[in-house]
Amino acid sequence: MKLLHRTQQLSIALLTGLSLATASSAIAFEALPETPPVPEDNPLTPEKIELGKQLFFDPRLSVDGTVSCNSCHNVMASGTDNRPVSVGVGGQKGGRSAPTVWNAAFLTAQFWDGRAATLEDQAKGPILNPIEMGLPHQDVAIERIAAIPGYVEQFATVFGGDNPVTYDNIAKAIATYERTLITPNSPFDRHVKGDEHALSTAAKNGMKLVEELGCTACHNGANFAGPTNLPTGEGFFQKFPTHTGTKYEKQYHLAEDLGRYEVTKKDEDKNMWRVPTWRNVALTAPYFHNGAVGTLDEAVRVMAKTQLNKDLDDTQVNDIVAFLNSLTGEFPEQTLPRLPAMANETVTAE
Amino acid sequence: MKLLHRTQQLSIALLTGLSLATASSAIAFEALPETPPVPEDNPLTPEKIELGKQLFFDPRLSVDGTVSCNSCHNVMASGTDNRPVSVGVGGQKGGRSAPTVWNAAFLTAQFWDGRAATLEDQAKGPILNPIEMGLPHQDVAIERIAAIPGYVEQFATVFGGDNPVTYDNIAKAIATYERTLITPNSPFDRHVKGDEHALSTAAKNGMKLVEELGCTACHNGANFAGPTNLPTGEGFFQKFPTHTGTKYEKQYHLAEDLGRYEVTKKDEDKNMWRVPTWRNVALTAPYFHNGAVGTLDEAVRVMAKTQLNKDLDDTQVNDIVAFLNSLTGEFPEQTLPRLPAMANETVTAE
Repeated sequence: MKLLHRTQQLSIALLTGLSLATASSAIAFEALPETPPVPEDNPLTPEKIELGKQLFFDPRLSVDGTVSCNSCHNVMASGTDNRPVSVGVGGQKGGRSAPTVWNAAFLTAQFWDGRAATLEDQAKGPILNPIEMGLPHQDVAIERIAAIPGYVEQFATVFGGDNPVTYDNIAKAIATYERTLITPNSPFDRHVKGDEHALSTAAKNGMKLVEELGCTACHNGANFAGPTNLPTGEGFFQKFPTHTGTKYEKQYHLAEDLGRYEVTKKDEDKNMWRVPTWRNVALTAPYFHNGAVGTLDEAVRVMAKTQLNKDLDDTQVNDIVAFLNSLTGEFPEQTLPRLPAMANETVTAE
Repeated sequence: MKLLHRTQQLSIALLTGLSLATASSAIAFEALPETPPVPEDNPLTPEKIELGKQLFFDPRLSVDGTVSCNSCHNVMASGTDNRPVSVGVGGQKGGRSAPTVWNAAFLTAQFWDGRAATLEDQAKGPILNPIEMGLPHQDVAIERIAAIPGYVEQFATVFGGDNPVTYDNIAKAIATYERTLITPNSPFDRHVKGDEHALSTAAKNGMKLVEELGCTACHNGANFAGPTNLPTGEGFFQKFPTHTGTKYEKQYHLAEDLGRYEVTKKDEDKNMWRVPTWRNVALTAPYFHNGAVGTLDEAVRVMAKTQLNKDLDDTQVNDIVAFLNSLTGEFPEQTLPRLPAMANETVTAE
């Protein structure tokens, strides 16, 4: 249905005599939905959300009990760790900067390179990654969870069946919690919904600029990460840097990581990246897949040059930064999870 | 006043003809207070608790943004990290097992060796410890907090004055939050308050045993960590191991760390340790200052042998473990803190 949206808008524009630019503007700028898309095979229930939250915060899913999902995707903050690259077990550094978990529900593919189709698939990765959470095998995750009575009870309630504690179900619970991590009602959203006082003049100028310059060719849709209605697993990718050989590319090592090519080994995927969200981007410094750029204003300059071959003046940069700041949403209040206890011993004693 | 308590009990016992054992029992077994002692120079306010909670969970107080107070003192769980020794920045391992933060408000000295008099003093240590949170100087902590508008505002509200963001005030806020971490209403507490059905038969047997064997000579008071009414900074210490040369001492390397001696360099402090709490001890495996013992039943055997020179049979061990499990209290529901944001950049970008 949503794929017809642009055509519908165009039809309305033609019928009503609105300019195409206005219609196009209406397409690019959408408020964030307050509810996520939910896959048919993993319905969202309060019990599953609560279980998933416990698992998301539980460092016992890492080999030495020091790293949880939340360590790198801190939901008390930006949904990232605000580091260039993350640190996993044993002080090991990852290869890429942690993307935010906030509003990841609206992405049609996960990870910087889109290698996971769903949040469920994504959740299975870091637990077994030797430099992230480092469990040697999914059976170890299952054994650990199955040794904790409070988890066993919840898995039985949530998933039922003879054998509810499975790796698939661990991932389903975590993904379910993550789907609830949505930040609606940003100043931008209030503006789109008709509040004329929601945005500053600078932000309004920035909003025009990101269209006129061409940023929204990629950063569009409700999540500003490309269409949110692609088939599951079909990510929205763009080459970065598109214009090669800039001073920024060299200074920030932007082309060294080949991105999606590392997954597909196809030449056309060299330096291709899933377009990241602009939602809450003001909070997720440092920037880009390698976290090499420390500030949002510099990130804006880099993107204008590497993607659009444009040099922005300070006013343009300030206005765009003001607009991007208007995409900081409201973070829902949550209770602190209690991690189910294991009495008299622990799975991380060695 | 409380120092007179034992004498008063004895007087009452003599006057009423109660046996000394009963009176002594009444002294040893106290319910946990639901409110903490609060120092005069750091009153407890809701705003300070909230600020302290944010700081407690904020990894920006570590040099690389990976470690918060909660990393090692996980309040979503046992208030420890359930590891033999903790892991700080850069994957570095600490020298001792993290003690629980739950009910630390009732201790009269902090750290395993009692080297901090108050929770405020304690909070200042790990932030600057090179193998824990690793900030090079307290000025760096102050600079970081002062760069985050949401913190600056709260420090002004909570502490007032011209210069509210100080290292002392950071510690005061964290300590204030920690004072709220109390776990009342354990089965044991309900028993003490008159609920005859709160304890299992095994737990009741264990309760008698810990008195008869002599465990409560040290593990007494409301927190089972010695008197809670000593002057601030005066810890309640005991030698561990008291009976030297046991198989356990060798197997678990119990005497290698000289404990309080490392602080005072006095011979009489060799292998002296602050008596740790029994509250929630079922949840804090692995056990002892070096976390060398993985299970509570083994910890009970070790303590009986090294401190009392007694070999317990399995029933005795089981009963004592049942009693110790009855000391697992109720953990208060808390909201997940939101860490104040820094827009467009971050203090941990490098």
